[in-house]
Amino acid sequence: MLIVMKSTANEEQVAAVVSAIEKHGFTAHISKGDIHTVIGAVGGKIIDFREIELLDGVEKIIKITSNYKLASRTFQPEDTIIKLKNSTIGDKELTIMAGPCSIESESQMEETTDYLSKLGIKILRGGAFKPRTSPYAFQGLGENGLKIARKAADKYGMCITSEVMDISQIPLLVDYVDILQVGARNMQNFNLLKELGHINKPVLLKRGLCSTIEEWLMSAEYIMSGGNRNVILCERGIRTFETSTRNTLDISAIPVIKKLSHLPIVADPSHASGFRDKVAPLSRACIAAGADGLIIEVHNNPEKALCDGAQSLYLEQFEELHSQLKVIAKAVGRTL
Amino acid sequence: MLIVMKSTANEEQVAAVVSAIEKHGFTAHISKGDIHTVIGAVGGKIIDFREIELLDGVEKIIKITSNYKLASRTFQPEDTIIKLKNSTIGDKELTIMAGPCSIESESQMEETTDYLSKLGIKILRGGAFKPRTSPYAFQGLGENGLKIARKAADKYGMCITSEVMDISQIPLLVDYVDILQVGARNMQNFNLLKELGHINKPVLLKRGLCSTIEEWLMSAEYIMSGGNRNVILCERGIRTFETSTRNTLDISAIPVIKKLSHLPIVADPSHASGFRDKVAPLSRACIAAGADGLIIEVHNNPEKALCDGAQSLYLEQFEELHSQLKVIAKAVGRTL
Amino acid sequence: MLIVMKSTANEEQVAAVVSAIEKHGFTAHISKGDIHTVIGAVGGKIIDFREIELLDGVEKIIKITSNYKLASRTFQPEDTIIKLKNSTIGDKELTIMAGPCSIESESQMEETTDYLSKLGIKILRGGAFKPRTSPYAFQGLGENGLKIARKAADKYGMCITSEVMDISQIPLLVDYVDILQVGARNMQNFNLLKELGHINKPVLLKRGLCSTIEEWLMSAEYIMSGGNRNVILCERGIRTFETSTRNTLDISAIPVIKKLSHLPIVADPSHASGFRDKVAPLSRACIAAGADGLIIEVHNNPEKALCDGAQSLYLEQFEELHSQLKVIAKAVGRTL
Amino acid sequence: MLIVMKSTANEEQVAAVVSAIEKHGFTAHISKGDIHTVIGAVGGKIIDFREIELLDGVEKIIKITSNYKLASRTFQPEDTIIKLKNSTIGDKELTIMAGPCSIESESQMEETTDYLSKLGIKILRGGAFKPRTSPYAFQGLGENGLKIARKAADKYGMCITSEVMDISQIPLLVDYVDILQVGARNMQNFNLLKELGHINKPVLLKRGLCSTIEEWLMSAEYIMSGGNRNVILCERGIRTFETSTRNTLDISAIPVIKKLSHLPIVADPSHASGFRDKVAPLSRACIAAGADGLIIEVHNNPEKALCDGAQSLYLEQFEELHSQLKVIAKAVGRTL
Repeated sequence: MLIVMKSTANEEQVAAVVSAIEKHGFTAHISKGDIHTVIGAVGGKIIDFREIELLDGVEKIIKITSNYKLASRTFQPEDTIIKLKNSTIGDKELTIMAGPCSIESESQMEETTDYLSKLGIKILRGGAFKPRTSPYAFQGLGENGLKIARKAADKYGMCITSEVMDISQIPLLVDYVDILQVGARNMQNFNLLKELGHINKPVLLKRGLCSTIEEWLMSAEYIMSGGNRNVILCERGIRTFETSTRNTLDISAIPVIKKLSHLPIVADPSHASGFRDKVAPLSRACIAAGADGLIIEVHNNPEKALCDGAQSLYLEQFEELHSQLKVIAKAVGRTL
Repeated sequence: MLIVMKSTANEEQVAAVVSAIEKHGFTAHISKGDIHTVIGAVGGKIIDFREIELLDGVEKIIKITSNYKLASRTFQPEDTIIKLKNSTIGDKELTIMAGPCSIESESQMEETTDYLSKLGIKILRGGAFKPRTSPYAFQGLGENGLKIARKAADKYGMCITSEVMDISQIPLLVDYVDILQVGARNMQNFNLLKELGHINKPVLLKRGLCSTIEEWLMSAEYIMSGGNRNVILCERGIRTFETSTRNTLDISAIPVIKKLSHLPIVADPSHASGFRDKVAPLSRACIAAGADGLIIEVHNNPEKALCDGAQSLYLEQFEELHSQLKVIAKAVGRTL
Repeated sequence: MLIVMKSTANEEQVAAVVSAIEKHGFTAHISKGDIHTVIGAVGGKIIDFREIELLDGVEKIIKITSNYKLASRTFQPEDTIIKLKNSTIGDKELTIMAGPCSIESESQMEETTDYLSKLGIKILRGGAFKPRTSPYAFQGLGENGLKIARKAADKYGMCITSEVMDISQIPLLVDYVDILQVGARNMQNFNLLKELGHINKPVLLKRGLCSTIEEWLMSAEYIMSGGNRNVILCERGIRTFETSTRNTLDISAIPVIKKLSHLPIVADPSHASGFRDKVAPLSRACIAAGADGLIIEVHNNPEKALCDGAQSLYLEQFEELHSQLKVIAKAVGRTL
Repeated sequence: MLIVMKSTANEEQVAAVVSAIEKHGFTAHISKGDIHTVIGAVGGKIIDFREIELLDGVEKIIKITSNYKLASRTFQPEDTIIKLKNSTIGDKELTIMAGPCSIESESQMEETTDYLSKLGIKILRGGAFKPRTSPYAFQGLGENGLKIARKAADKYGMCITSEVMDISQIPLLVDYVDILQVGARNMQNFNLLKELGHINKPVLLKRGLCSTIEEWLMSAEYIMSGGNRNVILCERGIRTFETSTRNTLDISAIPVIKKLSHLPIVADPSHASGFRDKVAPLSRACIAAGADGLIIEVHNNPEKALCDGAQSLYLEQFEELHSQLKVIAKAVGRTL
């Protein structure tokens, strides 16, 4: 922590700041510039820096150390590669997770999985518990949905990713799925994150709608500090003043994360845009920008989908997109 | 729902839209303008309007009916007045809730409560369960804290408001406190909201950091639709590009809510600004804008506070603010 | 400027940074912390700090010195008080500027001015040149409008404030008005700001819709560095994700500016909200938050207004607001 | 325009609204729904719809007709293809504009142009007039810079694009350059836009930092309504709460514009990100998302650049990016 004093700060004010930070166990290093005296605070414990900021003569406080450590590329320079039973995430091969918004029926999952596996898709997505704005909307099939999805995935040797909304659902999901998803609204549900730090399966952590990249990495840190290092970050759009798409996909977050962290990052263009006709352009853009993969909503019959049909690709649209992604993968030194 | 067709839409496209909405149980009313044909859809059930928006020839969909009903002033024109054992919220008399961020000790609560009650404060605030960004930070005293607060409040005939973070904490909080608070991060924790719809105590619902006013009222609707009509809205700042305060207090939300809803609205200037020296100006502004009250962090010794001391007022600062608010109350036809 | 090195930075990388900043005339002060080496750069000239940020081993750059000097309270601790021929701005007495959006006719200005002067209003507002989104909308009366306004103002001993949109309009406006306004869209029209630095009349500088407080003060600095120290800041709302008002009035900017700068600050609730029924609550809030005054749209016949009638107060509404403001002024130690 | 009445609106209120819109020349079409009466207003002239919104019983106003016409795909379904003397913009072949931020010297432009032309680049970018936040920063070479650029471009048969900051610069720029650029800060400088409607050269219109897509198309409409149909849109990032890049490149704007308008759209990843190492990922993403081209800052010696060196690519970096873009072009059915 650096404390920048005002240009008008006097000796007593500097001394008072030094005394305050020493009380918290810090050592003070004073350096006088042309205009400002700067006090470096080294070695103390975590404090609420605003207390110092309110002292007389203080212009501002600058935090030097980032709040995440395990998630940072400084701590681990090489990329994290997550191993699943049939594939990896974060390696040269791109990861495409696909499937319906919600698990609805055996025939739906059978037909979808059959189609996806023929394209070489390794990970099936599908929700069993759905957070819905309206209490009257379809809330998901629960454990029954998980059984259906597991059966379909096993038939084709695929993995499953599905959302966990509450601590109480963790044991059930761990039994059925290969990757647990944390939704955007739960990115700062710290109790949930802590519990996910103790499980033995990868966690896909979506960015909150108004969360900074730093807050997102701090949420990853919550999971990792519990012992679970297998975190996959997922960009899914932020809220801005622009309303022509549901959210604004922050494509720049992909290279930023690649620089700050060793964790794999994927993108969710289906939820970011909210409309089917925007999914393919955004999917291509994310791979071109360096994402490790995508999670895409695909439905065998979008008009009949019980949830988010409007943003689900038709199977043929997905197939066309998949072949475009193969070309783009080459441009960025990846395979698909 | 109104469906605006493109100026180039042909008869078949209009017919296809009519057919699609009739399938969902709507009756279609077609009106042809100079440029656009507009189809009114009346009487159907809830659908994902984006499905219609993707049909050929459709320019846009316009939702007519708001998503909340019980919370709207159209449904109930007169103000909701919430009755507590020692006061009311939403009536002519303004409501000031004050107290520390966290309940820390008996002596702290005794000293604070003694002071506040002499100023005529009727509601004590104080957290027993704290959502903290860092896992190493003070997490609250739990039930022990609630006991301390209850004892201090009872001695002076005060009510208590405290935050509920999880469904599992509801029974405990209902036993000890008079108003349950839902924090900004939980504004769309729909499971929690549903449960709070079944309790018999008022709920103070904070606005999420990136939630629109409509989403906020929809969250209130979740609680109200369960039977609990005693909801107090609390504006506490939104996230914008400006970083000189922690959040941007959306003062305009106060008159907007007053027009749209009959529910009482209070403001939390302590969390919105994050700094003690901004709390008094924002508090005065909220009352001047028509808020029904405030929830303010006050501490008998802010430098020693275990949480958010930097945004807590000293007791004397609070007293000075309180006397300013009395003057402003008169300007807006209220009392304090 | 402080350069924070990565925890993994080696000696050569530190030396390369030192060499780079010395080339720009800075002296380097190295201090080694537990984790990070921090290099202080003192005394050099203005550089694009990103060049240093891209060097190997650099974690981040921290600017110490703010970009504005003349506008800062560090440079001038006491408040700037602007003297007009009939009043002051920034002193104990609050300043209310009122009048129509556009100057439309002699009878309109005569009737409005007569009314306002009886209430003790000292400054008349009114546009002669209007920036309009649509090319078909009323563009203002130009010099003729200025003549009408001047005549009406002189009759009652009032001052005039009116907007300047282009350098070419400065000579004309200087002849007719007492305060020149810079609109939100022109806050970073640097050529215009430079020219306004050379005139001998106060400038009211509106905040841009997506401008930070620091950028706003830098724009004030542009004017002040040319020699014109009489700048009045005007908060008029920022653009956020919330759409229920036209813009989000950033009420917190008022106490923030009061701390950072000695310049007077007023607010424009008419443009911030866009609707008449929000103007009074926001006006009261701004004065309660510590603003030095307001600029408010008032019209003798809002339904017939050629511009922004929907946000103009009726004369009687303004009178009622004015009497409320008198009460609030007392609460904040001001007069009206 | 549709006027949605409140569910509680009575007959007199409906009649008053009808009367008000008829005064403005509209014909009213009333349709009564289960809950709301909706009044369609057809055929009138442009009005400030807020006047109607403030009438008793009105819930909200819905604008049906978009504010731009010439720029819309409804008006012109086929893509606009802009013809330059050596290439086209908006056709199957992608357009890459490249060059330094500022024109600095003959040797710089000669070296850069020689390099770029060998890669097949057809359009040279370079600023002669620079908007700078600081009055002490390099302001551009003016006409001398334009001469240097023209000479270098002519030698290699290239076109030039350069920024116009003020109406007074138009004649000069028209003499020297092939495409005039309007910067983000000038996107709503309506006087400038009107003048550009009368020239005979294409205009590249950058999106403002806090401008919606609709406002952007309305600014294009300003130019087009003057007779100049050759407008190129340029996405260059919007301002959001995220600060890890200078701005947030709104990649979704590309498919949105492609649906709403027939105008070509390019992107400026250099200004959007502000850092060299983000330029290549964002460039690839924009082409993958369907942009018609890019405008990129490239410098023969970025460390010595007088402006924005930190975001300029080295020549070799540009060459590598160019070869990646060739691969991605194929994936989206384009050539390069």
